[in-house]
Amino acid sequence: MQPQRLTSLVMAAVAALGLAPASAAAAPRDVPAKVLQVPTDVSPGMQKLIAAPLNPAWNDQFNTGAEWRRFANKQAATVVPMIPAMLKRLHVKLARATMGGVKVFVLTPDEIPPENRNRLLIHVHGGCYVLFPGESGATEGIMMAGFGHFKVISVDYRMPPDGYFPTALDDAISVYKAALRTTSPHDMAFFGTSAGGALTLEMVLRARQEGLPLPAAIAPGTPMSDVTLTGDSFYTNEKVDNVLVSPNGFCHAATKVYAHGHDLHDPLLSPVYGDMRGFPPAILTTGTRDLLLSNTVRVHRALRRAGVEAQLEVFEGESHAQYQFDDRVPEAREAFTEIADFFDSHLGK
Amino acid sequence: MQPQRLTSLVMAAVAALGLAPASAAAAPRDVPAKVLQVPTDVSPGMQKLIAAPLNPAWNDQFNTGAEWRRFANKQAATVVPMIPAMLKRLHVKLARATMGGVKVFVLTPDEIPPENRNRLLIHVHGGCYVLFPGESGATEGIMMAGFGHFKVISVDYRMPPDGYFPTALDDAISVYKAALRTTSPHDMAFFGTSAGGALTLEMVLRARQEGLPLPAAIAPGTPMSDVTLTGDSFYTNEKVDNVLVSPNGFCHAATKVYAHGHDLHDPLLSPVYGDMRGFPPAILTTGTRDLLLSNTVRVHRALRRAGVEAQLEVFEGESHAQYQFDDRVPEAREAFTEIADFFDSHLGK
Repeated sequence: MQPQRLTSLVMAAVAALGLAPASAAAAPRDVPAKVLQVPTDVSPGMQKLIAAPLNPAWNDQFNTGAEWRRFANKQAATVVPMIPAMLKRLHVKLARATMGGVKVFVLTPDEIPPENRNRLLIHVHGGCYVLFPGESGATEGIMMAGFGHFKVISVDYRMPPDGYFPTALDDAISVYKAALRTTSPHDMAFFGTSAGGALTLEMVLRARQEGLPLPAAIAPGTPMSDVTLTGDSFYTNEKVDNVLVSPNGFCHAATKVYAHGHDLHDPLLSPVYGDMRGFPPAILTTGTRDLLLSNTVRVHRALRRAGVEAQLEVFEGESHAQYQFDDRVPEAREAFTEIADFFDSHLGK
Repeated sequence: MQPQRLTSLVMAAVAALGLAPASAAAAPRDVPAKVLQVPTDVSPGMQKLIAAPLNPAWNDQFNTGAEWRRFANKQAATVVPMIPAMLKRLHVKLARATMGGVKVFVLTPDEIPPENRNRLLIHVHGGCYVLFPGESGATEGIMMAGFGHFKVISVDYRMPPDGYFPTALDDAISVYKAALRTTSPHDMAFFGTSAGGALTLEMVLRARQEGLPLPAAIAPGTPMSDVTLTGDSFYTNEKVDNVLVSPNGFCHAATKVYAHGHDLHDPLLSPVYGDMRGFPPAILTTGTRDLLLSNTVRVHRALRRAGVEAQLEVFEGESHAQYQFDDRVPEAREAFTEIADFFDSHLGK
């Protein structure tokens, strides 16, 4: 398939006739309205997630940390009651603790194979830097502990109104520093999804700034790697993604509240602009309908261009972060097993 | 970001009120019309390809091999004059030959590093099984030879009206058998894009059927892995992709002519349905706007589920196969360098 040569020729002919638009390179593309069916070749559980209507909260926009916290608390109250059953299904124990002065959840699988005994994963949850306070932020960590049989520390970092940029990152780094007192960096990895994917990358940038040793691997899941609204799938997947829905929806509003006036281009908020040379091996996960598909593949390419080993996983039909929405969906097990295998091949034994 | 729990709760509430649609799992999604700008963070050359209007031939539909051949010849006549300059830019020599009774182009880079002296790549071109006859089909092979410094055999397989399914595959396998007489399979790889990506996968299935040894690696580029019109991005990227444009466009019409009544679900036409256990390590390439994004990631996942080492590369903003449209665009060098590095790590030295 190389019809561009035909296209180029047609364009050349058009240009020769003086009919070319003034700025062909900036020509926008009109895409007509369409009706999308649910993909047939994903699991029934994933079909349900894909078939769900647009997130009813997608356009909720609050201007203060206090308002976001009220909203987050309401949402957390719907998540927390589901956690005991999830811990049981995945054979994981949850305990509260403090590390480096920061609240964390220690997630311990009932069975830890010998090769994982000295290994430790640090989890930073998602939620646009304002959602999933407390236990409600630990679900992805529980999946990783359960599917991967790793011990996981899930960071309950401060969020607005208790703290604004860069307190989330400060807290995550404090936990890492505390972990370094007992665990070799060669036995550690960072992971998280969405804002947690961005924080995973930001933690590496920050660790390097502070002269800390880097972990052996990272798994930034569909990272909010560019909060300046750059990234083609923000637009191609607008109203296709039923989770984030629109680049100008709740998540952008929340991020601006967290940023608190700080420049959104700072690599500690938009890590795609960071220098990725010397980064640890990375595995990235996204879906074809994800609003952040572009900002996942842009990080993948930036890592590869920087000479970093980086593996990309893209799931059919999934919107933002849906691979970690329900541990009972086979695609969740598949995504976390890929990450676990990747960590297994990169962490010390 | 896990607002699904909120969504699920809202859905549960709706269902409790008896307001749920009869079949929530089949709920289609209405996507409004939109205007897409050209992404800003790709090279100027790639921006030009992305900004091009919809392929003017996208809805050309012919019913016979003879009509397709006339169209293909016209298109080839626009491509062939560009080849001498391309060979010069990439420092590659092109020679015509016959292998196993099949016409091929032998593409030899001026410089072959010692580790590539015994290595041989077999290229199968794209074009929906009907386009790019003769030299016009060799361009991707020339890029691979030039960027990767490998010797490449590009197969000029028979196309309608000279042959219908499975003659393309027959010819490619005849060339492979001939190559096996002089070269170890450990030193060989197959690659190609679009129909060539499908043929790459089909060659492995067919080689296994015939009890032939498998090559050391493969690079199916945005493969036409499912010609039954299954694959979510056929629809999400309809009229977003400016090359294939629509699942019901020229490419599907052409494939049906090639299939000549044969079942489109046959893994030798839709290789995503093939058994991929034991496949060689694979690297797959696509773009976020590609109509075959889904059918590339579905193959990637099928390979991974079958326990095969498989690497996925997705380029920002690119429509179908645009990574191999113009060797002067930096993203082309990048894509072929990724493939060359992958081959280098898997082929015998």
